[in-house]
Amino acid sequence: MTEPNAGPTAGPIAGGTGALADPAYREAVVDLLGALAYGEISAFERLAEDAKLAPTTRDKTELVAMASAEFGHFASLRERLNDLGADPFVAMAPFQQAIDSFHAHTAPSTWLEGLVKAYVGDGLAADFYREVAAFLDADTRSLVLETLADTGHSEFAVDRVRAAIEADPKVGGRLALWGRRLMGEALSQAQRVVAERDTLSALLAGGVDRPGMDLAAIGRMFTRITENHTQRMSTLGLQS
Amino acid sequence: MTEPNAGPTAGPIAGGTGALADPAYREAVVDLLGALAYGEISAFERLAEDAKLAPTTRDKTELVAMASAEFGHFASLRERLNDLGADPFVAMAPFQQAIDSFHAHTAPSTWLEGLVKAYVGDGLAADFYREVAAFLDADTRSLVLETLADTGHSEFAVDRVRAAIEADPKVGGRLALWGRRLMGEALSQAQRVVAERDTLSALLAGGVDRPGMDLAAIGRMFTRITENHTQRMSTLGLQS
Repeated sequence: MTEPNAGPTAGPIAGGTGALADPAYREAVVDLLGALAYGEISAFERLAEDAKLAPTTRDKTELVAMASAEFGHFASLRERLNDLGADPFVAMAPFQQAIDSFHAHTAPSTWLEGLVKAYVGDGLAADFYREVAAFLDADTRSLVLETLADTGHSEFAVDRVRAAIEADPKVGGRLALWGRRLMGEALSQAQRVVAERDTLSALLAGGVDRPGMDLAAIGRMFTRITENHTQRMSTLGLQS
Repeated sequence: MTEPNAGPTAGPIAGGTGALADPAYREAVVDLLGALAYGEISAFERLAEDAKLAPTTRDKTELVAMASAEFGHFASLRERLNDLGADPFVAMAPFQQAIDSFHAHTAPSTWLEGLVKAYVGDGLAADFYREVAAFLDADTRSLVLETLADTGHSEFAVDRVRAAIEADPKVGGRLALWGRRLMGEALSQAQRVVAERDTLSALLAGGVDRPGMDLAAIGRMFTRITENHTQRMSTLGLQS
């Protein structure tokens, strides 16, 4: 089967200019977009599944709206992979196991756990997109930043979670533990992916036309992501 | 909670001009849009669920793309209901039971059954939209026809189903029975809805500014819908 979006550039890695002319960089970008694309399609699946826990059709629609937005992101990433001459599904395959494991280990058992996951997950994804954008060529960066601009569907979760904690403060303690588990699983899967995919570590190390990161800078990046997570938990009324 | 799309016209049924100034017509339009909106949100849910049966991520994305398109339709219908001053979720509620029953009685147990349902269901919905459009005021008709123009994501199903029948002709017999069951359930739930909702029968009967349908015309409408279904089954390589 051929991809509907496959343009005239389809085929084995097409030629490029600028940073993309470097095969190692190009491979890293295909890996990165493949990881993001699989992340989006599985976010769709999880949100659609977690929407079943909604107490009302109105609440359900909020998670369904987020799921549909994730599919929109996926479609943009798939198009970019096709433009780069890569098969999007081949590019996604190496990340399937880690992302599936993350979701298998963090399947919400209540509507509120689903809301916390949607809010925290959306925020972590946005942070991650923002951090990696700095290491990309201008075209790929624009795509990643546009995808980022379209997140933020999860704000409704804040109202619902805060109201539930106000009604029953014990809920807050359980959801705080849940938030910590989400963050732990996300970090452990992310570390596993970076350790296994040399291309991604090379991307972080930079190139002739692109800035790189030393270990101290990587440490600061994790600090920023962790601080944002703490801030989000606090917005939800939860200790992190 | 307030709906994000609720504009200044929100509140109990807002005043209108033309056909919408007639309260009975307006109520019928709210009912019809409510039925379509609940149909879309539950089509999203079923397609997202049936996507789990996909043999590959590539196939899965095809059903996920359809699910996302259904959510887009839902969002347009919800906006129109808000513009009419109706609460979309109140408008949807009377149709929940019939539509949920339809899906409960037609939950696919295999990927191919899911594909046939997606293709046949998409086609039936498009036929139904086209038929009811004739009975609507110009603005509502435009919305319904725009929604219709955005269907047709299900063509990929034809390739997959035909290939499966070619590989194993016995598959065709089972899927033909399945197609008949889908059509039977759709008709019986549709009849139940029209019988229970006087507004919808009144809509079909027409009004001062709008054409109506006598029993013979309703008979011809069912004939057209049945013929299109037969045509679609044949496109899939199935007897109806």
